[in-house]
Amino acid sequence: MFFVPEIIEKKKRGLKLSKEEIEFIVNGYVDGSIPDYQVSALLMAIYFKGMDEEETTNLTMAMAHSGEMVDLSAIKGIKVDKHSTGGIADTTTLVLLPLASSVGVKVAKMSGRGLGHTGGTVDKLESIPGFRCELDGKDFIDAANSIGAAITGQSKNLVPADKMLYALRDVTATVDSIPLIASSIMSKKIAGGADKIILDVKFGSGAFMKNYDDALKLGSLMVKIGGLAGRETVAYITDMDQPLGLAIGNSIEVIEAAETLKGRGNEDLLSLCLEFASEMMVLAEIESDKEKAIERLKASIDAGEALKKFKEIIANQGGNPEVLEDYSLLPKAKYELEVVAPTDGFVKQIDAIRLGITSMKIGAGRQKKDDVIDPAVGIWIYKKVGDKVTKGEAFAKILANDEEKLHWAAEESKAAFEFSREPIARRKVIWAKITKDGVHEL
Amino acid sequence: MFFVPEIIEKKKRGLKLSKEEIEFIVNGYVDGSIPDYQVSALLMAIYFKGMDEEETTNLTMAMAHSGEMVDLSAIKGIKVDKHSTGGIADTTTLVLLPLASSVGVKVAKMSGRGLGHTGGTVDKLESIPGFRCELDGKDFIDAANSIGAAITGQSKNLVPADKMLYALRDVTATVDSIPLIASSIMSKKIAGGADKIILDVKFGSGAFMKNYDDALKLGSLMVKIGGLAGRETVAYITDMDQPLGLAIGNSIEVIEAAETLKGRGNEDLLSLCLEFASEMMVLAEIESDKEKAIERLKASIDAGEALKKFKEIIANQGGNPEVLEDYSLLPKAKYELEVVAPTDGFVKQIDAIRLGITSMKIGAGRQKKDDVIDPAVGIWIYKKVGDKVTKGEAFAKILANDEEKLHWAAEESKAAFEFSREPIARRKVIWAKITKDGVHEL
Repeated sequence: MFFVPEIIEKKKRGLKLSKEEIEFIVNGYVDGSIPDYQVSALLMAIYFKGMDEEETTNLTMAMAHSGEMVDLSAIKGIKVDKHSTGGIADTTTLVLLPLASSVGVKVAKMSGRGLGHTGGTVDKLESIPGFRCELDGKDFIDAANSIGAAITGQSKNLVPADKMLYALRDVTATVDSIPLIASSIMSKKIAGGADKIILDVKFGSGAFMKNYDDALKLGSLMVKIGGLAGRETVAYITDMDQPLGLAIGNSIEVIEAAETLKGRGNEDLLSLCLEFASEMMVLAEIESDKEKAIERLKASIDAGEALKKFKEIIANQGGNPEVLEDYSLLPKAKYELEVVAPTDGFVKQIDAIRLGITSMKIGAGRQKKDDVIDPAVGIWIYKKVGDKVTKGEAFAKILANDEEKLHWAAEESKAAFEFSREPIARRKVIWAKITKDGVHEL
Repeated sequence: MFFVPEIIEKKKRGLKLSKEEIEFIVNGYVDGSIPDYQVSALLMAIYFKGMDEEETTNLTMAMAHSGEMVDLSAIKGIKVDKHSTGGIADTTTLVLLPLASSVGVKVAKMSGRGLGHTGGTVDKLESIPGFRCELDGKDFIDAANSIGAAITGQSKNLVPADKMLYALRDVTATVDSIPLIASSIMSKKIAGGADKIILDVKFGSGAFMKNYDDALKLGSLMVKIGGLAGRETVAYITDMDQPLGLAIGNSIEVIEAAETLKGRGNEDLLSLCLEFASEMMVLAEIESDKEKAIERLKASIDAGEALKKFKEIIANQGGNPEVLEDYSLLPKAKYELEVVAPTDGFVKQIDAIRLGITSMKIGAGRQKKDDVIDPAVGIWIYKKVGDKVTKGEAFAKILANDEEKLHWAAEESKAAFEFSREPIARRKVIWAKITKDGVHEL
């Protein structure tokens, strides 16, 4: 029998909590026998004193087991999941799903809705007329087996401990603790049932992790946790100091994904999708050679197979696959306004989070959980850091359903871009890859 | 308007909270608009990051003003209160009240009940048949004016913020924070209405503060807070590595107080009472010379005036003053058992907290708030550190109303004493005095 104040005291003094103590806290919090005021004091002590890999793994597993553990064993082959810590213009999943399954990787993806300035894959796909993300367990498994890919919203009973802890952390200033972030992410991935996990840990002004070193710590810790939990995990540290792709919104991100699958997409987004998809092929044991995997993926794009797979996925989940050929079938905003460069020069910096918040505020995202999303609105950017601009050239376009918001968003987008007379280097997209063998800087 | 997570975040980063932020938290917690889970996270952040003198004073004042502010202005003269952080065999208040008032100091004392291993003055006095501690405001003031001394239990509405915060700290491992301890004590003293305050900050194995340096920090901080709040405060750092007097219980502490007022008391207890009483005379401007004050106090004891004053106080509050002459009128335990020394030698150490807990468990104290106290039981010790003992000589006596408890307490008391063959130095009682001018080591 444990006594909660003694567990708090132990962590307060920087001592290691046992597996049993951690399980006692998580289970007691979920079943209501331990009150939130004791848990919040413990969370603050964890913020200050940290948790080692073993404690964080025990916390992760206790959280994962607090609700349903998804069983994907009915899907043939090795299931690989990809998770991003969240970014702006991050259309990766929309591209990755058809791209990887077009070469034989089975993808059974559970995805969340967006909150705040980061978009959610489910919201983006639901901008396709007819598309539905609420598949039941059988349809989900069947689709993954027959078509090779399926996407569904998160099960209501997945990791209730995380829902409770996250809500508590949010109001007690205990969000920014690396072991708490790591256990929150990994508990959901482990309960989600994938055999192997690829993590995209973003850093920079548009990401939750503001600097490279913290991202590296978080990524390394999650790779360790995955390994200890028997789920091989690979983490990438990638740039989020500017938007990743060019579209920030919902229907326009579907368009950007289609363009990428047609071989006409933004090169940063494409390079990340090729890296993740090839890594999925290696982890799923479909291709052992990374270079060859990338060749096969490029060939699939060139042959139109990846685009075709995307159409199949859409059709299978009730959507109209024609939207990928005729973008006018997607929801369209009433108003458009281009933002033009005030001077000749080069893009020096793009305030990604400002663009993300602007897009959210004109309706593309949710400020509160119950907000309804407007699938048509958003921001296209035409330029990224290092790109040349000439005076009067458009560098962004606002799509809005309200004239006032249109003009406000144009002003915000203008303020989010900084220009330089001197040439500026392009930003590297992938900074490091972390495997069980350690960190490989790229 | 403040946002609680931002206030928690500020303290978490070690920044200083404003007076307005502190008042917002205290008032919001008391009125129920701020939930305990946010307050407990803030308390843990305060544990780690501390509070400076100004913040602690602002917290103290916000807490003091959360309930009734007692007005003692109807009592003539300068009112001086004495407060102890709690100890074992600490009969000081019972001696001090009549001693100081016998030389003209007005004493209007609000006192708490005991909880845990420390006794409460109110409980001790209520062991006198007929004595009642629940005086109403008018009787309290009248008694202080006419007789010169009155004692009452704590008003129900005194510092509700402290009651709530203390209960929360107790279950969230946030008790041992010096600014939180200081504000808890000082808020009650300030709301209690005294003009000047003497603090007895005890340190050692039997005290809450385990070491001298922490006691010094706490005492210095409280002297600063008192000064900033306009209540001149003097703090003493005194020994609690062994029991102060010889009696640990309720009726037996009344006996020890009577013995001390008759000039036959333990010298450690007497020396502390003379120091505090003379300091009260100086602070109350009854005597400017400390040496002369002590002479007047000794003369009062020698002339029997202090004892006579104690009888007056008892009679005025409904008690039988004859108990001071005939101790058999006090509640008496059914069983007695002496504990004898196993060897010749000297007392090396006395585990004060073990004796305090033993006395509590045989009925002299409360383990839980609702426990009923047995006024008759307790432990007399005959020896203190440095005293010589011979084999077979009694060094303690147990008083109990249950034979099993009697024998258990005898074993515990035996184990609490450590003996040495070599002579052992006596312990110093008063280690330092802290005034607004700084620390004076004694």
